Amino acid sequence: MDIAQLEAGIVSGDRRALSRGITLVESSRADHRAAATALLERLKATGRQALRIGMSGTPGVGKSTFIEGFGTMLTQMGMRVAVLAVDPSSTRSGGSILGDKTRMDLLSRNPAAYIRPSPSQTHLGGVARRTREAVALCEAAGFDAVLIETVGVGQSETVVAEMADLFLLLLAPAGGDELQGVKRGIMEIADIILVNKADGDLKAAATRTCADYAGALRLLRKRPQDPEGFPKALMVSALEETGMQAAWDEMCALIAWRREHGHFEARRAAQAEYWFGEEVRRGLLAQLETGPARAAMKRLGAAVAAGEMIPSVAAEMLLREIGKG
Amino acid sequence: MDIAQLEAGIVSGDRRALSRGITLVESSRADHRAAATALLERLKATGRQALRIGMSGTPGVGKSTFIEGFGTMLTQMGMRVAVLAVDPSSTRSGGSILGDKTRMDLLSRNPAAYIRPSPSQTHLGGVARRTREAVALCEAAGFDAVLIETVGVGQSETVVAEMADLFLLLLAPAGGDELQGVKRGIMEIADIILVNKADGDLKAAATRTCADYAGALRLLRKRPQDPEGFPKALMVSALEETGMQAAWDEMCALIAWRREHGHFEARRAAQAEYWFGEEVRRGLLAQLETGPARAAMKRLGAAVAAGEMIPSVAAEMLLREIGKG
Repeated sequence: MDIAQLEAGIVSGDRRALSRGITLVESSRADHRAAATALLERLKATGRQALRIGMSGTPGVGKSTFIEGFGTMLTQMGMRVAVLAVDPSSTRSGGSILGDKTRMDLLSRNPAAYIRPSPSQTHLGGVARRTREAVALCEAAGFDAVLIETVGVGQSETVVAEMADLFLLLLAPAGGDELQGVKRGIMEIADIILVNKADGDLKAAATRTCADYAGALRLLRKRPQDPEGFPKALMVSALEETGMQAAWDEMCALIAWRREHGHFEARRAAQAEYWFGEEVRRGLLAQLETGPARAAMKRLGAAVAAGEMIPSVAAEMLLREIGKG
Repeated sequence: MDIAQLEAGIVSGDRRALSRGITLVESSRADHRAAATALLERLKATGRQALRIGMSGTPGVGKSTFIEGFGTMLTQMGMRVAVLAVDPSSTRSGGSILGDKTRMDLLSRNPAAYIRPSPSQTHLGGVARRTREAVALCEAAGFDAVLIETVGVGQSETVVAEMADLFLLLLAPAGGDELQGVKRGIMEIADIILVNKADGDLKAAATRTCADYAGALRLLRKRPQDPEGFPKALMVSALEETGMQAAWDEMCALIAWRREHGHFEARRAAQAEYWFGEEVRRGLLAQLETGPARAAMKRLGAAVAAGEMIPSVAAEMLLREIGKG
């Protein structure tokens, strides 16, 4: 693999080179990993930055339709937009990958847009590293905005928020007492809540839902990285493409404020350090998969399963054996 | 601390000794940890087993009222019942602990029942280990059933399911389209879904909800550990105490089938091995908190935050430095 050539292709905006680069960072083969690291090291020099927009929404809230409309709007403003997905369940269902591209038909044929489905991977941690590195490749390729979307299964919102400059939560209109159905953790990481389907029969319900969430957001403790009035709840209609411009204006206002007050760079620095820690932890645990540790795991695990030892005693023994007790 | 005395107290059914034992396994002090391990080792010899019933339900579904009624019913059958809680959010709110005891007023004064609030701990992993060890203490103390309940924040249901012989999901009656609000992951670990509040005005809605879930459960792939007809959805009223006996009969039928077909012991063995792995991983990661690794984490982390290195390169360097690259 010619890394210099791949680098040149990505920097020049060659989409096939970008796709090959992402395939490289997604690979778990040791030689691919080394090549991916070398590629990322080289691309760091471009210094290019995109706005990284994290986004979560459960199936049925109109996420694909929103991304299609929102992404198209950004390209009409002259921006280049990349869409990446973090879907920890994609291994099993297999359907979401095809689904994404099909449902974002317009955007996927737009020359200023690039859509990449989620890497198939059982471990959320693995998907996370690959997606984060794919974001870096998209930035080096000169995209102005990178949308990182997730369906919000388990902890995937947290993972996405840890690699985004701002986080959007897309919701559908609902009855007032469904408010508590949204996990508290998501409310706490959301910068802007978008109540979708503010159209037709659902408009009244959307207005009510939006007001409910605006109220709920006011009850949360103010975070230092937020200007007055944030986090915020807004209404959009992905179908009628209304509210998109207002939502974008709010995102720009938020980011401008964060840049001005040092929060933008501070967040990126903290995120980089977080991912460093994650990679160290993953690397450390990898030793259990090979060599004498693997054999000891098997042997002591069997003793525990047979009821001969209690888990904590066996664990202490294993850590002593591999020199970490 | 006299471990032999503590052991004798727990085995004889002394509640104060049990509480002291649980406090010991909850402590993270190194000497306490060693004493706790010694205690667990000794108690293993009793060979006593309780039926471990995991249970999840979001706030508002009537979980405490259900446990109060269900637990009381079991004690009236001559059983001794312990109730433990896994609430990863208890550190922050602080409210749930007091709440549990207050809402289960009758059970908490019942001499055949023992209620222990969730240990306060930020990390779910920490709560998990301690709760699992508390279950072992309750078994050694001669309880016939141990109810392990969780509010279902994040991954706490999975944690509870990993230490239970069967898992109950308590739900409230709802409109048909809220069905998908239940996380798919929980549907997959539930053995019995109990639709609560099947009383008064909500009875019709409960009937509909129960039928909806019964239908949804039929769509899931059959698991090898389930007899015909399981997982199952049933109606109960914690308030009117109806459906409790039927629910208990189903639990007994399920467990009897699993014992007969070897699934009961196989599950316990697999769970013990899982917890062994968890403890090994925790122990391995603990080395990052001390000595030269800690200093290197700080130094390289700062370089990553400053943008001087990319996370993967810094991580490789750290693992090499501590001899794990």
